[in-house]
Amino acid sequence: MNAVNIALSRRLRASPFESRSNIGIKAASVYNHIVLPTVYNSLQEDYWHLRENVQIWDVACQVQVEIKGIDALRLVQYLTPREISTCVPGQCMYAPLIDFRGGIINDPVILCLAEDRYWLSVSDSDVLFWVKGIATGMGFDVEICDPGAHPLSLQGPKSDTLLNRLIEKPATDIRFFRFIQTEIDGIEIYVARTGWSGQGGFELYLTDPTRGIQLWDFICSKGSDLNLRTGCPNLIDRIESGLLSFGNDMTLDNNPLEVGLDRFFKLGKQSEYLGREALETISRDGVSQRLIRVFCKDQELQNPRTTYRAQINDKDTVSCITSISYSPRLGGSVGFGFVPADMTAIGTEIRIETSGEEWLGKIADENWCTNSL
Amino acid sequence: MNAVNIALSRRLRASPFESRSNIGIKAASVYNHIVLPTVYNSLQEDYWHLRENVQIWDVACQVQVEIKGIDALRLVQYLTPREISTCVPGQCMYAPLIDFRGGIINDPVILCLAEDRYWLSVSDSDVLFWVKGIATGMGFDVEICDPGAHPLSLQGPKSDTLLNRLIEKPATDIRFFRFIQTEIDGIEIYVARTGWSGQGGFELYLTDPTRGIQLWDFICSKGSDLNLRTGCPNLIDRIESGLLSFGNDMTLDNNPLEVGLDRFFKLGKQSEYLGREALETISRDGVSQRLIRVFCKDQELQNPRTTYRAQINDKDTVSCITSISYSPRLGGSVGFGFVPADMTAIGTEIRIETSGEEWLGKIADENWCTNSL
Repeated sequence: MNAVNIALSRRLRASPFESRSNIGIKAASVYNHIVLPTVYNSLQEDYWHLRENVQIWDVACQVQVEIKGIDALRLVQYLTPREISTCVPGQCMYAPLIDFRGGIINDPVILCLAEDRYWLSVSDSDVLFWVKGIATGMGFDVEICDPGAHPLSLQGPKSDTLLNRLIEKPATDIRFFRFIQTEIDGIEIYVARTGWSGQGGFELYLTDPTRGIQLWDFICSKGSDLNLRTGCPNLIDRIESGLLSFGNDMTLDNNPLEVGLDRFFKLGKQSEYLGREALETISRDGVSQRLIRVFCKDQELQNPRTTYRAQINDKDTVSCITSISYSPRLGGSVGFGFVPADMTAIGTEIRIETSGEEWLGKIADENWCTNSL
Repeated sequence: MNAVNIALSRRLRASPFESRSNIGIKAASVYNHIVLPTVYNSLQEDYWHLRENVQIWDVACQVQVEIKGIDALRLVQYLTPREISTCVPGQCMYAPLIDFRGGIINDPVILCLAEDRYWLSVSDSDVLFWVKGIATGMGFDVEICDPGAHPLSLQGPKSDTLLNRLIEKPATDIRFFRFIQTEIDGIEIYVARTGWSGQGGFELYLTDPTRGIQLWDFICSKGSDLNLRTGCPNLIDRIESGLLSFGNDMTLDNNPLEVGLDRFFKLGKQSEYLGREALETISRDGVSQRLIRVFCKDQELQNPRTTYRAQINDKDTVSCITSISYSPRLGGSVGFGFVPADMTAIGTEIRIETSGEEWLGKIADENWCTNSL
C-alpha cells in the first residue's frame, strides 16, 4: 500500500493536542477534516503496549454535534432507531443514525448533558450538516452547533490508576458509558468511561482548546511510572474487540441489521424516527448479507485499500473483507467482512483474494474461535 | 509544518485513477474522504509546468451529489441564493450553498444534466447529507445520490490541443462553463470547460470507474509531445487566480457577502431559498469583515497550519491570513485574509505574525497590484 505525506492546511482543522500528538507519529489518516494518528512505533508494538499499559490518544477528530432546545430529545429520537428517552444526564448511548432507507449515516456515542441538550460524538461524516438539514426541513425548535469539544482518550488497563491521579473523585465512580464534569489541573473537563479500544479507559472532552497542551502535559507528568505513552486507535485491537469503523466496515449502503447494530436497539420504539418503515421491511424480509468476523490462522494479511473479494464453498457468492489485520497474540489475521445471510455459520471456510494471492479463513465467533458446533 | 504518512484504508475511498496519480506524488491531502494529491515535483515546479503546458489531475475527490426528480430545480433553488432556473442542460453554474444563518455549507459547481436532473460538484464537505436532510425534512419529491462520477482534470494552456486529440468535436465547441457528453477511446464521458486553475482547461467526468486506468493511459498516450505531466491543484496558481478554497478561505462561519461570492448572484431572487432573510439582514447592516488579497513583496511565507494573525495600522484589529504562498513569478507571497470591512483599501499595510516572525504585506487588487489609487 502506498503512503504519502499529508499536506496540512487550515482545511484540515488543527487538534489542540497536535503539537504533542505529532511527536513520534509514523502514520495518520484524516477523519472529520482533522488529522487522526494511526501508528506510532508499529501497529504491533502499539497493540502490545495498549494491552499492558495506558496510552494517551489525540482523538480530537471525534467531533461533537450539539443539539439543544425544547425539541432536542424529539430530534435525537427522530435520528435513530434506538430509544434515547431513557438516557439520563451523565449517560452515553451508542446509536446508529439512519436515513429514510435505513442506510447508516453515522454511529455516534450520544451524550446526554441535560434533558434538552445532547452531544453526538460522531465518526467520520459531516453529521452537523445532516442534523441541521433535518432540523431545518422539519422545523424542529433546536439550536445545532459544533460545541468545540476536543476529546483526548486514555486507554489501557492502567487508565483507572492514571485517572485517579487526575481527578478528585475515584475513577470507579464513573460507570461504563457514564460521564462526569470535573477539573484536571484547573481545566474544566468532561470525563466519560468510553473509548475506541477493548482495553477500557476514558474519553476526556476539553472545551477550551487553548488549554490542550497544558492538559496533555499535566496528564503525561502523572503517568511516567505507568509507562504512559502516546498512542492512537489501534487497528488490531479494534478489530479484535469487535469495534466497527464507519466508512470501513459500514457505509450509507449498509443498514444496521446486516452489520449487527440491531443489538443496540429494539425494533418498534414508540416515538417517531426516520427510516422506521425501511427497517421494519428489511427485518420482515430478512437481510441479504451479514457482517461476520473472519480468522485466518497463521496468515498475515494487510488491511485492504478498498475491500478484498472473498468466496465461500467455491460458490461465486458476493462476499468481501472490509478490514483485516494480523494479531500477534492470536497467531492469525482477524477481520470483518460481508457474506450471504445464509452462510454465516461459525467455521465456514472463506477464500480471500488479494492482488495475486489467495488466503484461507474461517468465520469466527466473538472470541475468534472457528470451531463449528 | 509537520508531515506524516497517510494510512490508506477503505474509509478513504479509492479514486479510479489512484494507481496512476500516486506515481511520483510527494504530498497529498484528504478531501471528501478521498486522497487529493497536492504536490508532485515541488509547488513551484508544478506551478511553472502548469502555466506552460498541460497537466492531468486526479480530482476524483470532487464528488457529485445528484438531485433528480420533479422537485429537482425547486430543491436546487432552495439551496442557494443564485438564480439557477436559467441554467440549461449542458451548462454549469458556480453557486454557494448556505444555511438559514447565511453560513456557507459548500461552493459547488452545479451541472444541469436535464431539467429535472442536476449534479452538485462539491468541495470538501458532506453535501450529500445536507441535501438529503433538507429534502427529507421538507418532503421534496426528489432522488438524491452520489452518482459515482469521478472527475479528472486537464489544465494548462495546451489543454485545448490535447482535448482535440481525444474527442471528435472541436474543443472550441465547448464554451466556458458548458459541458458535453461524448466518448474518449470508447469510454462515455462528460467534458466540461471548468477546472480549479487559472490556466484554462477541462474537467472530465468518468461514470464507469473500471475504465479509469484505460482513460488515464489513453490521454497520456496523446500528450507526450505536449509535455503532459501528472499534476494537481496548485496552491500558488489557485491563490493567484483568486480561487477560494472551502475550509481554508471560507467556512460555515462565513457568509457569501463577506468573502465576495455575492458577485455570483443578485440578492432578491424570486424563488424561495434558505437563508434569504439572513443574507438580506447582513446586506442591509453591512458585513463586519471582508476577504481581501494580500501581497508580501520579496517575502516567502509558508501556507499557515490554521491562520496567521494580522494587524493593520498598528491597531489591534481582528485580521488574519487564511492561505498564502510564494509566487516565483510575482516575486512575493500571495494570499487571502480577513480584515475589518472598513479597512480594505488597496495598498493598506498589513503586518502578519507567524511563529516568531513578522512580515509586511499590502492589500492587493485582482492583479496583485498594491498601488493605492
